[in-house]
Amino acid sequence: MTRTVVESKTKTSIIGFDEPFCVIGERINPTGRKKLAAELELDDFSTVERDAIEQMLCGANILDINSGAVFSNKMAEDPRYADNNFVEPPLMRELILRIQKVVDTPLCIDSSVPAALLAGLEAAEGRPLLNSVTGEEERLELVLPLVKKFNVPVVAISNDDTGISEDPDVRFAVAKKIVERAADFGIPAHDIVVDPLVMPIGAMATAGQQVFTLVRRLRDELGVNTTCGASNMSFGLPRRHGINAAFLPMAIGAGMTSAIMNPVRPVEMEAIRAANFLNNNDPHGTEWIKFSRVLEAVAAGMSFADASKESAEASSGRGGRRRRR
Amino acid sequence: MTRTVVESKTKTSIIGFDEPFCVIGERINPTGRKKLAAELELDDFSTVERDAIEQMLCGANILDINSGAVFSNKMAEDPRYADNNFVEPPLMRELILRIQKVVDTPLCIDSSVPAALLAGLEAAEGRPLLNSVTGEEERLELVLPLVKKFNVPVVAISNDDTGISEDPDVRFAVAKKIVERAADFGIPAHDIVVDPLVMPIGAMATAGQQVFTLVRRLRDELGVNTTCGASNMSFGLPRRHGINAAFLPMAIGAGMTSAIMNPVRPVEMEAIRAANFLNNNDPHGTEWIKFSRVLEAVAAGMSFADASKESAEASSGRGGRRRRR
Repeated sequence: MTRTVVESKTKTSIIGFDEPFCVIGERINPTGRKKLAAELELDDFSTVERDAIEQMLCGANILDINSGAVFSNKMAEDPRYADNNFVEPPLMRELILRIQKVVDTPLCIDSSVPAALLAGLEAAEGRPLLNSVTGEEERLELVLPLVKKFNVPVVAISNDDTGISEDPDVRFAVAKKIVERAADFGIPAHDIVVDPLVMPIGAMATAGQQVFTLVRRLRDELGVNTTCGASNMSFGLPRRHGINAAFLPMAIGAGMTSAIMNPVRPVEMEAIRAANFLNNNDPHGTEWIKFSRVLEAVAAGMSFADASKESAEASSGRGGRRRRR
Repeated sequence: MTRTVVESKTKTSIIGFDEPFCVIGERINPTGRKKLAAELELDDFSTVERDAIEQMLCGANILDINSGAVFSNKMAEDPRYADNNFVEPPLMRELILRIQKVVDTPLCIDSSVPAALLAGLEAAEGRPLLNSVTGEEERLELVLPLVKKFNVPVVAISNDDTGISEDPDVRFAVAKKIVERAADFGIPAHDIVVDPLVMPIGAMATAGQQVFTLVRRLRDELGVNTTCGASNMSFGLPRRHGINAAFLPMAIGAGMTSAIMNPVRPVEMEAIRAANFLNNNDPHGTEWIKFSRVLEAVAAGMSFADASKESAEASSGRGGRRRRR
């Protein structure tokens, strides 16, 4: 069965057909987080470090590190800052070095700038996941050699030079092309994690069914792991967590093996842990029972991160200290 | 596509491959509800009537009416009350007559006593669902003639004279036998709703996968609708609603078309409504958006039934009265 191995210096996370669902934490991303971008512009990495720790505590198996920041003030002083090729590589390097100091979770290097991907690959310890290659010719030619050279797995997004197709058969064909092109570089299918692209269900009534069908096909016909930006599904709708919390088990049931998402949301994490149990990826319900205590603590007013931390310490025996006093 | 039509005097509920998931309310069941059984023994139907109304308000499409009461006090006075064949037929008749006076929801006549099924069929208006036949020879010979005579759909439970098999292939074979035997009576497959039997995931790690695989096979190979006692899955576990709320979307994704469950639980109903939307059975998300307002009212402290009632009145324009004052 397909297994994609992602590693930090000391830890391994596996995305796989017979593995618990892999949660890729999405929080470290200055795109659309103006406050975070402003902090990074001032070399303030405190939010990034806190987000890394919180996501790890809440159950992220991999942390996505996106360097897509816009440094407006620096741009006003120095026009070179208008160019992402100038901003992102050193930022990616710094983000990864800082994050590796505070958590041991495997990382996902996320940028649309190939030089930033390279900077990330050089800074990351272990075997990070690269995010991403697309079916666009230029991206294929720039990113696949990096994947090969550094022997890392890669997220493949199923759009190409014609854009994002609303036809799922076209998106499947793009994914197939990427897998084939990767094979030409000697990159095996088990190192490719396809994102079939999730459309908002509010805008396209078949968006859910498209994903479920595509995930099944990608798994059965190409033998690849899959991922998605899970919260796209509920974009623009009320009670988004409720939609996400049904979408994730349905996607897992269809065979999806990972998602890029916010792990600091107990509702979505509960849905995933229940789906793992129901999919026979939580022997004896050990993880579910542990998690149910975290949820009880959250219901009693504790933050999800703190409750998760306490639970982890209790499991590892470190929580015993307090009781022994 | 397979459609099972269930009707009250004035309303139709359809269990179908391309229909929103059909919720069969389980509350009216004195088995295991001692207080309810004691009330029924005293000819007190107030809880039954309230449960019927509440389940209807909360979104039940069909109401299951189970007559399996044990009348302990009467039994002490008159030994005939020890016999379910004596107790259930008149009780089923009375339950149905009372419930039909307070709600117009289609009914499901639920008893292990064939004479109670007959009493229910005679009392029910429209086209009720009969619950149930099994693969046991005696049940097949007693129940299928009733199904044929009254031209009603029937729930088929996949156990037989050898009991409940832990092997899903055996349970499939039992379901197939029932469908074939029904065909001999001239009963079409679209009038059979198979319950593949849900085992507790806490006791059997493959219980979830068994159901998903069986539902898909029953749908693809036999062309039948499916149902289950959804909450069996989480039996004995902490945070049961969380497991149920992931199980239902996964089962719906696998093709399950109905469940016998408690509709007065907003967590499970939210999962079902989200799954309907994601399965393209809620055009434009109209139902989801309406339901999200109900959940907001529940979050603000209103009961689920009251919030649902207010929402239904607002939709039908009756809620306008208040605003016009």
